[in-house]
Amino acid sequence: MELLPPEQIAFQRLLDTIRRNFERFGFLPVETPVMELSEVLLTKSGGETERQVYFVQSTGALEKAGEGLPELALRFDLTVPLARYVAEHEHELAFPFRRYQMQRVYRGERAQRGRFREFYQCDIDVIGKDSLSVRFDAEMPAVIHAVFSEMAIGKFTIQMNNRKLMRGFFEAQGIADPERQALVLREVDKLDKRGEDHVRETLTGEGFALPAEAVARILEFVKARSSSHADAIARLDALVDDASANQALRDGVAELREVLELVRALGVPEDHYALNFSIARGLDYYTGTVYETTLDAYPQIGSICSGGRYENLASHYTKSKLPGVGISIGLTRLFWQLRDAGVIDVADSTVQAMVALMDADGLTDALDIARRLRAGGINTEVQMEPRKLGKQFQYASRAGIRFVVMAGEDEKARGVVAVKDLKREMQFEVAREELAGSLKVELEQARVLEGR
Amino acid sequence: MELLPPEQIAFQRLLDTIRRNFERFGFLPVETPVMELSEVLLTKSGGETERQVYFVQSTGALEKAGEGLPELALRFDLTVPLARYVAEHEHELAFPFRRYQMQRVYRGERAQRGRFREFYQCDIDVIGKDSLSVRFDAEMPAVIHAVFSEMAIGKFTIQMNNRKLMRGFFEAQGIADPERQALVLREVDKLDKRGEDHVRETLTGEGFALPAEAVARILEFVKARSSSHADAIARLDALVDDASANQALRDGVAELREVLELVRALGVPEDHYALNFSIARGLDYYTGTVYETTLDAYPQIGSICSGGRYENLASHYTKSKLPGVGISIGLTRLFWQLRDAGVIDVADSTVQAMVALMDADGLTDALDIARRLRAGGINTEVQMEPRKLGKQFQYASRAGIRFVVMAGEDEKARGVVAVKDLKREMQFEVAREELAGSLKVELEQARVLEGR
Repeated sequence: MELLPPEQIAFQRLLDTIRRNFERFGFLPVETPVMELSEVLLTKSGGETERQVYFVQSTGALEKAGEGLPELALRFDLTVPLARYVAEHEHELAFPFRRYQMQRVYRGERAQRGRFREFYQCDIDVIGKDSLSVRFDAEMPAVIHAVFSEMAIGKFTIQMNNRKLMRGFFEAQGIADPERQALVLREVDKLDKRGEDHVRETLTGEGFALPAEAVARILEFVKARSSSHADAIARLDALVDDASANQALRDGVAELREVLELVRALGVPEDHYALNFSIARGLDYYTGTVYETTLDAYPQIGSICSGGRYENLASHYTKSKLPGVGISIGLTRLFWQLRDAGVIDVADSTVQAMVALMDADGLTDALDIARRLRAGGINTEVQMEPRKLGKQFQYASRAGIRFVVMAGEDEKARGVVAVKDLKREMQFEVAREELAGSLKVELEQARVLEGR
Repeated sequence: MELLPPEQIAFQRLLDTIRRNFERFGFLPVETPVMELSEVLLTKSGGETERQVYFVQSTGALEKAGEGLPELALRFDLTVPLARYVAEHEHELAFPFRRYQMQRVYRGERAQRGRFREFYQCDIDVIGKDSLSVRFDAEMPAVIHAVFSEMAIGKFTIQMNNRKLMRGFFEAQGIADPERQALVLREVDKLDKRGEDHVRETLTGEGFALPAEAVARILEFVKARSSSHADAIARLDALVDDASANQALRDGVAELREVLELVRALGVPEDHYALNFSIARGLDYYTGTVYETTLDAYPQIGSICSGGRYENLASHYTKSKLPGVGISIGLTRLFWQLRDAGVIDVADSTVQAMVALMDADGLTDALDIARRLRAGGINTEVQMEPRKLGKQFQYASRAGIRFVVMAGEDEKARGVVAVKDLKREMQFEVAREELAGSLKVELEQARVLEGR
C-alpha cells in the first residue's frame, strides 16, 4: 500500500491518535531493528510462518551463500522482537514493563485484495517478571476504548472471554483434549456462514460424535452476548452456579469478573464491552483473558483490535518466567478497510494556511507573513512564484488548505492582511500582528467542534 | 542501534520536532514501501552502492532462486524511492510537489562504531515540473534553522555554496574538466588534517602540476567564510568584479545572492548562515545551491544536515524533467553522536503522573483518579498492585515520572488528593476535580521555561 499525500495525512493522524493514547496510559516506546537473526525469528514458528518469512542478504552474503537459510530475516510480527528485546535487556528494564511498539512487519504473502506484505502493527503489552496480576488485563479494554473513541470511526464493542473459563466449560461437556476443543471451536466458528443446523449436525455426526445435549449446551454457550455490565456479571454467576462447574471454569469466571469490574472503574461505558464466549484467539498462546473489538456498523471487517493474556513471553530466549497481556492493531489493513467503507476523512491537509503572491515584488513581504504564521504555530506554505490569483485559490482548495492570506499594496499600507477562509467560505481582514493568533483560534474552534 | 525506553523517548522527541517543523513549512508526508524492485534501486548506483544493498527473498523465492540478482531489495536512501514515487504518481501530484519523508534506510555496511546498517533519514524536497525557481532554495535554510533551533542542541551554522559558482571559479583557474575539479577538491578537503603546506605541495606537484598562483587562489577561495550577511554579499560581489569572472561564476553568484536575500527575509538570523566555498557535496548530482550544517561546538561531528539543488530527479523513470531541491538529516547517526557528546537529555519520561496505590482496596479509586488525569490530557500510569510507598516513589523517580498522586482515606474524605512533585521536590494538595487542570498548568510552565 502506497498512499498519496492526502491519504498519508489521514493515515498519519490515525498513527498519532494511537500513539497519543498508548502514551496516555503510561506505555513506553520501543523500536526494534527490522532484521532479526533467522534462528530467533523461526524458533517458535510453525511451517506456515516459515513460508512467509522474508530473508535478507547483502550482496556480499549473496555471493558467499552456502547451504542453509540466510542469517537474517525481516520481522513478521512485533511479539517475537518483543520477546527477544525483553530477554536481552531483562536486567535494564523495570517490571511490570509497559511498552508500546508501532512499526511495520513483513510477510511474504501473495499480494491480494486486503492482504499486505508490509503493514503497520501497533502493539501494547505489559510484561511481568515471575507473575503479573490479572488487574492489568483490565487496562487493555480501557486503552482500546480511548483509541477508537478518539478515532471517531463509529460505535464499537470490545468482546471479552477467558481461556480458562472456556477450557473448564468444554471439559464439563466431556471435551478435555485441547486439540479436540480447538476442532469443536473451528466448527462453531462456522455458525454465521453455515447456520446452526449444519454445525449441530457436524458435531453430533460421525467425526465428533458428541451427545445432542452437550452440543445444545455448547451452541447456547457460544451464542451468549451480554447486554450490559449487570447482565455480564449475572451470566458469569450463572456459569458457576451450575452443578457441572469445575475449577478451571471457576478460575476463569473469577478472573473475568475482576477484569469487568475494573474495566468499569476505568470508565469504559458498559455499552462498549460485552462477554462473548465464542472468542478464542490463538489457542496455543493465550491462557486467560482474550479480547476482540468489532465495529457495530461494520461486522464484516472483523476484529480491529485483538489480544489477550499469555503465560510466558520469552521461554525460548530466557529462563525467567515472563507472563504478559497485550493487544494489537493492524493499522494498514484497518485503514484500507475503513477507506473502502468511506469512514476515512481525507479532506484536511496538514498545511493550514497559504500565503498568496500578488506579484513578484511581494515575495519578501509574503515570506515575512509566513514567518509570523509559522512562529505562531500555523503550518504555512508560500506561493514562491506569481500566478493568477484564481489559480492560487484553486490550488489551495484542491490541496485542502483552509486559509489563503493576501497582502496587496492597499492592505500593506493599512498594516492588515486579507484572509480567505475556504472552509467557511468567507473573507476577513486582520491586523498583521494578530494574524497567527486569530487563525489559531479558528483552527482550535474547528478542532473542538469536530471533537478531535 | 536498539534503545532502552528513556533513550527511545528522547529519540522520538527529535523525530517529532523534525516532523513538526517540516509540516510547519508546508511539506506533505510520504511513506514508501521498504522494498523496491532491485532493478529500480540499482539503476543509478555505482559499484559502491551495489555492494551495500540488502536483497530480500521470501522462502518460496529462495527455493526457486536461479541466476541473477533477487527481484527485491531494501531502500538504501529516500531519494531513489522519491524518484520512483514521483514518476509513478506524476499525474496525481500537484507541482511544485513538497514532500517530507522520515523512514529507515538500509545499507549492508560492516558494523562499526557510528556506522549503522539501519538508520533513519529525514528528508524534504521540493520537486518542480520542467522548472523550479531558485527561490525555493531559500526555504531549505529556513527549515534547517527551525528544526535545529527547536532541538536545542547548541549553536549551528548553515554553510552554503553554489555548484555553478564553483565550476566557474575552477574553470577560471584553468581546471575545466569536472573530474579534475573533483580530484582537486578531494585534496583541498584534506586541509584540516594535513595542513596547507601539504595540500599546496600536492597541487603544484607532479600529479596536478597546477601553477603556484592558481593554487594560491584556490586555497584562498576554499578558506573563505563570510562573517555576516553583508560580508557574504560583499564576497559575492568581489567574485564577479574580478576580471576572470566567467558566465558560470556570474550565474552562480546571482543565484546565491538571491537565495541569501530570501533566507534573510525568512527570518534566519545572519549568524546562523555563512558562505563556504569549500562545500561541494555529491559532484555528480547537485547542480546549484548546496548546503551543509555544522554544530559550532562540535565541528568533529561534521555535517548534521546537508543537501542541495539538482537538475533532474527521475530521468531513469520518466521523460518529464523534474528539477528539485532538498535536504536530509541522518537522525540515527546524529542521535548517537549527540548522546556521545552528552547533548541529549534523557531525564523525562513520556509518563507524567503515577497514581500510587496505598492498599489493595484503593484500586477502584486509583483507577478513577487515573481516568480523570487521562481525560485531562495527562499521561498516567497506575500502580496496580500495592507495594511499600517508598518503593513506589523509587520507581517513579527512576522512571523519570514527575508527579506521584496519592489518595488515602483522609484525602478521600476531604475530596482532595496529595501530589508529590519529584522535580520541584515539593508536595501539595488539590481538589480531585482540579487535579488534571493543575498538573497541566505545571507541565505547561515547565515546557515554556525549557523553551520547548
